[in-house]
Amino acid sequence: MKRNATIFFALLLSNFVLYAENDSLQIRKIFNQILSKGTCYSRLDYLSNQIGGRLSGSVEAERAVKFTFETLKKEGFDSVWLQPVMVPHWVRGAKEEAWFKDKNGKVVVSVCALGGSCATEKQGLFANVIEVNGLQEVGELGEKLRGKIVFYNRPMNPLFIKTFDAYSDAVDQRAMGAVAASKYGAVGVIVRSMGSNVDKNPHTGMMRLQNDLKQIPACAISTYDAELLSAALELDNSLKFYLKMNCETLPDVLSYNVLAQINGSEKPEEIILVGGHLDSWDNGDGAHDDGSGCVQSMEVLHTFKALGIKPKRSIRCVLFMNEENGARGGTAYANFAKENKEIHIAAIESDAGGFTPRNFCASTSEDKLRRLRGYAPLLQAYGIEEVLPSGGGVDIGPLKEQGTCLIGFGPDSQRYFDIHHTAVDTFDKVSKRELELGAGNISALVWLISEYGL
Amino acid sequence: MKRNATIFFALLLSNFVLYAENDSLQIRKIFNQILSKGTCYSRLDYLSNQIGGRLSGSVEAERAVKFTFETLKKEGFDSVWLQPVMVPHWVRGAKEEAWFKDKNGKVVVSVCALGGSCATEKQGLFANVIEVNGLQEVGELGEKLRGKIVFYNRPMNPLFIKTFDAYSDAVDQRAMGAVAASKYGAVGVIVRSMGSNVDKNPHTGMMRLQNDLKQIPACAISTYDAELLSAALELDNSLKFYLKMNCETLPDVLSYNVLAQINGSEKPEEIILVGGHLDSWDNGDGAHDDGSGCVQSMEVLHTFKALGIKPKRSIRCVLFMNEENGARGGTAYANFAKENKEIHIAAIESDAGGFTPRNFCASTSEDKLRRLRGYAPLLQAYGIEEVLPSGGGVDIGPLKEQGTCLIGFGPDSQRYFDIHHTAVDTFDKVSKRELELGAGNISALVWLISEYGL
Repeated sequence: MKRNATIFFALLLSNFVLYAENDSLQIRKIFNQILSKGTCYSRLDYLSNQIGGRLSGSVEAERAVKFTFETLKKEGFDSVWLQPVMVPHWVRGAKEEAWFKDKNGKVVVSVCALGGSCATEKQGLFANVIEVNGLQEVGELGEKLRGKIVFYNRPMNPLFIKTFDAYSDAVDQRAMGAVAASKYGAVGVIVRSMGSNVDKNPHTGMMRLQNDLKQIPACAISTYDAELLSAALELDNSLKFYLKMNCETLPDVLSYNVLAQINGSEKPEEIILVGGHLDSWDNGDGAHDDGSGCVQSMEVLHTFKALGIKPKRSIRCVLFMNEENGARGGTAYANFAKENKEIHIAAIESDAGGFTPRNFCASTSEDKLRRLRGYAPLLQAYGIEEVLPSGGGVDIGPLKEQGTCLIGFGPDSQRYFDIHHTAVDTFDKVSKRELELGAGNISALVWLISEYGL
Repeated sequence: MKRNATIFFALLLSNFVLYAENDSLQIRKIFNQILSKGTCYSRLDYLSNQIGGRLSGSVEAERAVKFTFETLKKEGFDSVWLQPVMVPHWVRGAKEEAWFKDKNGKVVVSVCALGGSCATEKQGLFANVIEVNGLQEVGELGEKLRGKIVFYNRPMNPLFIKTFDAYSDAVDQRAMGAVAASKYGAVGVIVRSMGSNVDKNPHTGMMRLQNDLKQIPACAISTYDAELLSAALELDNSLKFYLKMNCETLPDVLSYNVLAQINGSEKPEEIILVGGHLDSWDNGDGAHDDGSGCVQSMEVLHTFKALGIKPKRSIRCVLFMNEENGARGGTAYANFAKENKEIHIAAIESDAGGFTPRNFCASTSEDKLRRLRGYAPLLQAYGIEEVLPSGGGVDIGPLKEQGTCLIGFGPDSQRYFDIHHTAVDTFDKVSKRELELGAGNISALVWLISEYGL
């Protein structure tokens, strides 16, 4: 009996070793395919350089839908379809103008309207400026803000090692700044850009609106010019700031999520979603945010097809519309899934840039997290250090209530806020190898989940 | 007795926890200092943009010696000095010219002389081309190469995950290509650039010479043009290639290693070296290779001083001269250390670019490697995943025979061979945060070794 048990465990062990070895080989094949015959870099080139910035409702967004739909269609997956969704249609209009006057004369500064902001009056806004450190200070100043422009100037804290933590810590100024200032009769808002560097590129991004409050124009100012303005205010706090913005919110527009699927061979009803968002801000090319996530997600399906992998579970690529200023695509998708009683066992979103891979992070139960962590050693040679608890993405977030395991792909974050939501989020900032290694790790994780479930 | 033992172990454990916690706090202080008040980025700006490419023997190299010496001197460390070393003086001369003729006419291609190459004749070289895959094929072709230009065109293999492995696998063509071809009477050599991308930037680098063989001109061709030339040769293998190079080897020149030291408070005779190389190739700014390593090494001493840390062991920053084309600085340094009976317990070199930190790699005994690995968890939050066996650097290599533990700093390697030895190794390719996080991890490791030894 003891001998039998020994043999049993020896077999179990050898099976386990064999199984791990086969997994390694399959993952190596996935990376070989992507690193030598990958399509994601050239597709990103097209999306960035032939289409460019693609804010919801724009012609560029529709061209991006068409391009990705047709590209996926040509691949001959089991199904490729469009999911209609009404999206906001905010337009920037003519380029913003901004300057202030100090003792040496007019100083032109670099600003851009925040997404969703109203325009200034035609003649522009010209008012005194009060610099604050954050929302709390606005509450404290209260009525002193009446008739003034509020200048939020708290920088991203460089002491956070992960830049997303610094972003989370500072972004309330951009998101809530206008609403907070409007309550006290402020006439406009300037927000220091959410950027890690001191440079001349303003970072746009979404701001909240509140229906019962008067809307006031809100812009981001480049970090360099924020320092300049702050220094000028220290010398002369009576200086006046001129701002002209021409943005406008037009009626909602019909747009689409783009979807493609390879059906599972054993459990087709279990879906593993992989996605990114197709829309981007209008000022850059949206190469990192989130062209990278889109082409990586498309690459997963392409890789399965190219290698002839028949996944046990269904793999669905979803390119969401309108993450940046409404998240309507993600919401519509989750509703659609619910109505159709679809089972999403896992959803992986790549929306943190196309940089060198470092981790996955998952919002899920303890046992599923443990399972995912068990996969990590297979990806270590390809740059994945760990699977962190808590993660996901804006677009897949609404699937949470359906019990889906939400996973975010975590590339290195150090360079992200140099380019995020700026005119320099362009194709040349993306490294081909980094993009491909990301696609490889996402594909490998999708494959592991499709083989073994969660 | 049992109770006493329990108390003893409890105390031991609490001491251990306290000790680890204090280490964590000290390391956090080091990072806070560098991320908020670091000097390395602005120093790199100066080195890259005010001085630029600084090949051994050049005026720029001497300016780099002067700038770093004076900068370190101003800091008021215990000692700052120069170590004389005779270095090779190879100059590129006027820009290279190269083209070939196919049926559509003249195709101008982008090349640069390899370091140490002789010039072509004044009228240039004009000859047929034979494309080969590597040194072995040259041996097989033998006398067929007489009078021809040998074109080495084996790309860096994209399937290697770490680009340094792909570099090691391909670089024999550049290093040994001319010697191998000259043996069979070839008249020149074109080597496909050691680059991860297909682009127009030729990558220079050192080539070996052999005294008993006729020297023949050798250049690197951009990867884009290598593909062009290869395609043209496939259509017409009788095409002729024109190459004009104006480089020259002048007599050796006196130059210097730049050194600075903070003396140890308890074991001043035990030295921990941290360094990079001050020289760079002439075509770019040498921002990543190896301006980054220099300013990071300087930052270590600056950080100790700024935080008032009195290290138990001596910390020495060494900026080596002539890593790129002779390694004379490293050799001279090791000789000097030997003559003076200095004890280098560890030497850390940063010469793999200023990219986001990922690991350290050490060539040392098993037990020292184990000790270093014990430190790694303290650095994990700052990006260090592991301490790998086998590593070091060209400059610190000669210290090996003195029993020094050699440690290489390992940043992410994916972008390095996009810019290595090219005109685009420039300051704008360096991320401030990545550079600083590297300096932080190196400083933290130096501090741990200075506290606890190896």
